[in-house]
Amino acid sequence: MCELLGMSANVPTDIVFSFTGLMRRGGGTGPHRDGWGIGFYEGRGLRLFQEPRASSESEVAQLVQRYPIKSEVVIGHIRQANVGKVCLANTHPFVRELWGRNWCFAHNGQMTGFAPSPGFYRPVGDTDSEAAFCDLLNGLRQAFPEPVAVELFLPSLVAACATYRQHGVFNCLLSDGDWLFSFCSTKLAHITRRAPFGPARLKDADVRVDFQAETTPDDVVTVLATEPLTANERWSLYRPGEWRLWRRGECVAQGLSD
Amino acid sequence: MCELLGMSANVPTDIVFSFTGLMRRGGGTGPHRDGWGIGFYEGRGLRLFQEPRASSESEVAQLVQRYPIKSEVVIGHIRQANVGKVCLANTHPFVRELWGRNWCFAHNGQMTGFAPSPGFYRPVGDTDSEAAFCDLLNGLRQAFPEPVAVELFLPSLVAACATYRQHGVFNCLLSDGDWLFSFCSTKLAHITRRAPFGPARLKDADVRVDFQAETTPDDVVTVLATEPLTANERWSLYRPGEWRLWRRGECVAQGLSD
Repeated sequence: MCELLGMSANVPTDIVFSFTGLMRRGGGTGPHRDGWGIGFYEGRGLRLFQEPRASSESEVAQLVQRYPIKSEVVIGHIRQANVGKVCLANTHPFVRELWGRNWCFAHNGQMTGFAPSPGFYRPVGDTDSEAAFCDLLNGLRQAFPEPVAVELFLPSLVAACATYRQHGVFNCLLSDGDWLFSFCSTKLAHITRRAPFGPARLKDADVRVDFQAETTPDDVVTVLATEPLTANERWSLYRPGEWRLWRRGECVAQGLSD
Repeated sequence: MCELLGMSANVPTDIVFSFTGLMRRGGGTGPHRDGWGIGFYEGRGLRLFQEPRASSESEVAQLVQRYPIKSEVVIGHIRQANVGKVCLANTHPFVRELWGRNWCFAHNGQMTGFAPSPGFYRPVGDTDSEAAFCDLLNGLRQAFPEPVAVELFLPSLVAACATYRQHGVFNCLLSDGDWLFSFCSTKLAHITRRAPFGPARLKDADVRVDFQAETTPDDVVTVLATEPLTANERWSLYRPGEWRLWRRGECVAQGLSD
């Protein structure tokens, strides 16, 4: 089982606190010893840190924890290998350019009997996750050769995820740096923090933060994770089949697929 | 003017020494204050570090200098912005997936009157460099829809570079993690280090290294740079129009375009 981490915010926000919790699960409090990765959007650019080893022992992970990179959209992942060997090419999140934007994808789960036909986008590694990501982009590209608003291809996105879910477990996060799409097959949680901000305490490490000291009254920050990361806040759990589209911290569309 | 750095080796080799010299040119001894980036291949995976600010002041650059990432192919770049604003999306090297491999590209120079027709690959930022990279991949993809050996598409690659060169200065490095292609429009230098290894002294920083202590007798390591990085070794200079294809440290093909 892997862990997902996502963030959508209306101001550039650092994710050091949540990342610290997630990283502890990578070989510390959790069994996810096979790699981790995190992508931070800066405008249309994407900054990606990845390592095919336990996050709790990773020097690069320590840098990312020390270094408050501020971003409006973040996608992170820690991995316990099920399919595909442990190597950089198999480490989430995966990135492809579509319509002149960087698309970033992370998957939690496992699929069986999934063999998509080869298309334009092809996997570099040998995970079912990257194969699904490529298939998803190939489908979108075929349906929409030119860029369209997310609202227009959202039904295609949801339909693709619903198909992948039939092959096993398919919780995922996907973004182009503007919006953040989330799909829950079995397990995903979210919390939206806004004024009045309060203190928060990590479940996986003895770390607390007072968000009030670090925010302005207009900030809206949503954090997504496979399981709630803090012990003293109320997280909302997705239902199986539920999807949500986030933009600048707010949920702008949601639904339930069959 | 920007600076390029490339490495091709027959064993995973760290590039800390050469990177240290290059980074000093990024706002230290050189005028390249507008960003830097470096991509390290690990198998088919690619590890990319980038920052849209002076490398001599960058915390991530310091990490890369401390952290001996071993790789067989490396492409690095420091930037002085000519075209396109200073931001992450405009920071070299650029990456795209083609034929299920990560292709990595860095360009030194400036082009005028270059407006390629839009294709499948589209620039995320607004540099002429990324536009040329996308155009080059679109051309290759059109000529070779399915993967072929580098020797087969090499003439197309050289022809594309010769075309771009007509629009200005086009020194570039390109790799898919297996081979490293280099094209010189005005300025590029190379050195191949092999047994017996000796000491080397950087031109841009008071740093010395004794390669003999860090290598085995079978190691072959080629370093490419816009200008020679060391003061006590004999670098070879490319001629204008010269291209070379490197693989595992050795030059496996070369030629001169018109």
